Amino acid sequence: MIRDMFPINRSLTGAGVRQTLAIIARHIDLTVHEVATGTPVLDWHVPMEWNIRGGTIRTLDGRCLVDFAQNNLHIMGYSKPVHGVFSRAELARHVHALPDQPDLIPYRTGYYADDWGFCLPDRLWQTMTDDSYQVDIDSDLSPGAMTYGEFFVPGETQDEVLITCHVCHPSLANDNLSGIAVATALAALRAGRRGRLGYRFLFLPATIGAITWLARNEARLDRIVHGLVLTCLGDDGPFHYKQSRREGATIDRAVAHVLAQAGAPHAIMPFNPYGYDERQFCSPGFDLPVGCFMRGVHGTFPEYHTSADDLDFVKPEALDGSFAVLDTLLDLLDRDCTYERIDGRGEPQLGRRGLYRAIAGQREAGGATQMDLLWFLNLADGRHSLLDMAIRADVPFGRIEAAARLALDADLVRPVAAREA
Amino acid sequence: MIRDMFPINRSLTGAGVRQTLAIIARHIDLTVHEVATGTPVLDWHVPMEWNIRGGTIRTLDGRCLVDFAQNNLHIMGYSKPVHGVFSRAELARHVHALPDQPDLIPYRTGYYADDWGFCLPDRLWQTMTDDSYQVDIDSDLSPGAMTYGEFFVPGETQDEVLITCHVCHPSLANDNLSGIAVATALAALRAGRRGRLGYRFLFLPATIGAITWLARNEARLDRIVHGLVLTCLGDDGPFHYKQSRREGATIDRAVAHVLAQAGAPHAIMPFNPYGYDERQFCSPGFDLPVGCFMRGVHGTFPEYHTSADDLDFVKPEALDGSFAVLDTLLDLLDRDCTYERIDGRGEPQLGRRGLYRAIAGQREAGGATQMDLLWFLNLADGRHSLLDMAIRADVPFGRIEAAARLALDADLVRPVAAREA
Amino acid sequence: MIRDMFPINRSLTGAGVRQTLAIIARHIDLTVHEVATGTPVLDWHVPMEWNIRGGTIRTLDGRCLVDFAQNNLHIMGYSKPVHGVFSRAELARHVHALPDQPDLIPYRTGYYADDWGFCLPDRLWQTMTDDSYQVDIDSDLSPGAMTYGEFFVPGETQDEVLITCHVCHPSLANDNLSGIAVATALAALRAGRRGRLGYRFLFLPATIGAITWLARNEARLDRIVHGLVLTCLGDDGPFHYKQSRREGATIDRAVAHVLAQAGAPHAIMPFNPYGYDERQFCSPGFDLPVGCFMRGVHGTFPEYHTSADDLDFVKPEALDGSFAVLDTLLDLLDRDCTYERIDGRGEPQLGRRGLYRAIAGQREAGGATQMDLLWFLNLADGRHSLLDMAIRADVPFGRIEAAARLALDADLVRPVAAREA
Repeated sequence: MIRDMFPINRSLTGAGVRQTLAIIARHIDLTVHEVATGTPVLDWHVPMEWNIRGGTIRTLDGRCLVDFAQNNLHIMGYSKPVHGVFSRAELARHVHALPDQPDLIPYRTGYYADDWGFCLPDRLWQTMTDDSYQVDIDSDLSPGAMTYGEFFVPGETQDEVLITCHVCHPSLANDNLSGIAVATALAALRAGRRGRLGYRFLFLPATIGAITWLARNEARLDRIVHGLVLTCLGDDGPFHYKQSRREGATIDRAVAHVLAQAGAPHAIMPFNPYGYDERQFCSPGFDLPVGCFMRGVHGTFPEYHTSADDLDFVKPEALDGSFAVLDTLLDLLDRDCTYERIDGRGEPQLGRRGLYRAIAGQREAGGATQMDLLWFLNLADGRHSLLDMAIRADVPFGRIEAAARLALDADLVRPVAAREA
Repeated sequence: MIRDMFPINRSLTGAGVRQTLAIIARHIDLTVHEVATGTPVLDWHVPMEWNIRGGTIRTLDGRCLVDFAQNNLHIMGYSKPVHGVFSRAELARHVHALPDQPDLIPYRTGYYADDWGFCLPDRLWQTMTDDSYQVDIDSDLSPGAMTYGEFFVPGETQDEVLITCHVCHPSLANDNLSGIAVATALAALRAGRRGRLGYRFLFLPATIGAITWLARNEARLDRIVHGLVLTCLGDDGPFHYKQSRREGATIDRAVAHVLAQAGAPHAIMPFNPYGYDERQFCSPGFDLPVGCFMRGVHGTFPEYHTSADDLDFVKPEALDGSFAVLDTLLDLLDRDCTYERIDGRGEPQLGRRGLYRAIAGQREAGGATQMDLLWFLNLADGRHSLLDMAIRADVPFGRIEAAARLALDADLVRPVAAREA
Repeated sequence: MIRDMFPINRSLTGAGVRQTLAIIARHIDLTVHEVATGTPVLDWHVPMEWNIRGGTIRTLDGRCLVDFAQNNLHIMGYSKPVHGVFSRAELARHVHALPDQPDLIPYRTGYYADDWGFCLPDRLWQTMTDDSYQVDIDSDLSPGAMTYGEFFVPGETQDEVLITCHVCHPSLANDNLSGIAVATALAALRAGRRGRLGYRFLFLPATIGAITWLARNEARLDRIVHGLVLTCLGDDGPFHYKQSRREGATIDRAVAHVLAQAGAPHAIMPFNPYGYDERQFCSPGFDLPVGCFMRGVHGTFPEYHTSADDLDFVKPEALDGSFAVLDTLLDLLDRDCTYERIDGRGEPQLGRRGLYRAIAGQREAGGATQMDLLWFLNLADGRHSLLDMAIRADVPFGRIEAAARLALDADLVRPVAAREA
């Protein structure tokens, strides 16, 4: 899937986003929204649609030095059309290169800049010493639409988990084809199940996509009880989780629990208002419980926003590992629940209900231990969720849940109305 | 007292518990309760009464290899009667030994197991290579009663401190004759005094005893403002305190304060729902502020639940030290109190009331320092107890209390209604 | 100013305090209060006024060994008049010397002691081996008044910041001429400005001065939203801040923020009820948010309360540094404010308002970064003050404030009613 999406040129708007959503739609029953240029969305307006067909820098004798067809990073996003001969000095004002990484093409955009630009390896740029070059960009920037995808798996309750990723980066594999692929895989898996919570997957152009979705769904945002932005899930680094603005929401505690229990190298980072679309979801007035789940952190790995973030940089095992952690997490959120003891007090007699035998029987299967069951029964007072219990007992959620099932089967507990977020 | 109690065979029920309570009753005016087999108590029922007169394993030619009369640990608690010849293979299913501690007899029970068993040193068991053995257990398991002891020292208020220990272990000295002895000594000392709080001492068969007491006293549990389970107080290790489920109750803060000020090596452990009867008192619906005070922690010292937990393992100095800390603690709880300044505000003039001289006079006697008095007067705002003050000032409770007396004598403060637990 | 004040003999009352206030009044429009001896103030009474004209110890042949005219530390504060010949043994009961610091004169007082005393270098005292000495103290202790100074800079609101220092120590430069000088400089600077908050500067005899001011202003203490006691600001040690009794008041958080952002070596100390007049302001019933700001901590530096706390001990750079931190702090308190977003929700579009350009323009001037602006806009929800934001973002307050100005100019936010203390 990543291989299919990689060659496509994506930006905030345009054909590339639509092609990408079409690939996603092969796997899940995606709804594609088109929002017309100029539509007011909160403090913003949907921008002009940008499309590009080609772009080159040639020597005056016609030799092609830089060609969009070779690598779509070569053209700065939202470059306006240009055709003409430019002196090297004039061209230099439109060239982006990385002297410290001379073999790499940088990724640059100029969404609202009314400008054009080329990105090229510094090593190439240093060899371009002609007085003038022929420059052509065959693009257009005109009224159209912004496109985003949405997929919803309804749950038994109105509560929803929001999973989003950005679909506006061109040929960059980790940032964020990895996020798209993992989100799609999670969505495909959830589509076949009906859980307690609904799962809403959004494939959005960054910033303006999130703002547009927020604006169009403002009346129903109280349904969002947990949320995650997914990005950079394919590199082989440790997991990073940036907490929601609340820094103590259930999603924050759940992710920390799952990562700790998985024994995976990871770091929990405080919220800050920079980064990916969590900054929109966590903006004041909304302040949704949405964190950002990633491996590599934007701006901190050398391949970031360069042509080195390519198909080789993304590892299947890393994608698998990311998927596994997230799938565990979504399961946990769905199955988290609060119970109370039917008899209201005391420690029930486990032996006469066969619970010691039941536990012994589960041992091989990684089920609840006796201690897990005791923790569950001790905290099943209507005020502790299974996640609360798992955190306090410092054992995997699944074992507390297994204990809950034993107790439920033994008529020792009943579920109480969930308290979310 | 421990020496007297040691040889008795105790279990959840039966003659051994009654004999033990009779020994305790030599020191305090104990009330002995008998609760009939089958009585429903919360989720449980009082079990059959078990009594045992003897038990042996003999060679077929009559040589006695294992004899209950030698060590009552040899018979698994609640073993049903058995008489017959068993092949070694059959016997092996009823034998408990410790290959890693081959000279020790383990302690095992099978309260609800409808089984029988022998416990013996692995070294002996390995020498028993005959084809068959003559096995006899002369016990009976029949309707009767469960017995527990209670002793109450009334206080000036209805508030009570609960001190409990278990009386159901056979010849194990630290676990828990040490707890019984220390609890009895504390009770004997309290009996002669009248304090603010009542002190309720319970000598209980573990689990079922605590559950029975809870069931029979459910309507008046709100009187329990602090509580401690006492066990393993005679070994020479550091103190351990396992917090109540609330992990911030006054009892938890008081024990931590007393141990820290005593300068004794100690560790504070979080609550968990395993262990001694604190798990019953802290079960949901009750959630009483009851912690567990011990030296050695169950399951973590090699003598635990073996014949090595004998009279030599318990040291008089260790018992004394345990008693001293607990006596200090009970004094603290009784004398903890909240004061408010009569004039309501400001720092009073100490000099004209002779308080500097009073402090100088106390110096030799370990009384309040000037700083203690300043802390007391600063925090005597009706919202800080003496314990709160001692913790904030990081000085022994007794010095803050001495400061309180000086201030009380000088008409600077008056007590306000106590806030407990 | 310190040089001018240094030779004056100060005590709780008397001519020295009046002369000192007169020097302060050269710089600010000081109101001098005289409170008559015997006036009841809370639990205290204003004491007798003490004045001294001279004091000597002479040999019987008339050689002057100790002379108040040489150093006013030689006479214990509040010494009653005495004239006569005393044996060395009798004199010894009235002599204070420091065997461990034999060249230094200690500072001693006996405010309510009805006594007299001399302070002298131990090295001198050891040479005084005559049988008897002629002792003269020409002082008087009689009804008069206690004097203190007050200077108020009104603000736009009724909220006030209290800045106090003690003016009762004789020739000790750091403790507390440094505090007087810095407070006066802060007052002189504030006098020329009108801010949101009022600034009330008090120059008080320690303890009785603070108690008197509290007693006379009891009905209006709710105006005090922040407060600082200033002392020992001229030595070259690190800053120390002793928190208010609340240990989480805005003043406590603000001082910690300013010191951390200044990168100055410093330590934050918990509250205790000893020290300077913060103990009066933080006494129960008042419990004002008043901390104590100092460099050297009383009792911990060798020059403390000795003749070594002289003009050489106080460094101009240290005074400057103290002033700079405090001026920054007072600015912060005055400018701290809470904003809310006008559109109530979401992240506004910065580009179309020219805010990216504005930030780029500020870069040289140390203004807000883009991240600062994002933090501000994210937390401008009516529930976070600028100080809250600066602490969470871990950047200097001034940068968040610069961000606020940009947002205010762009009509993105409006101030909301301040929440103080």
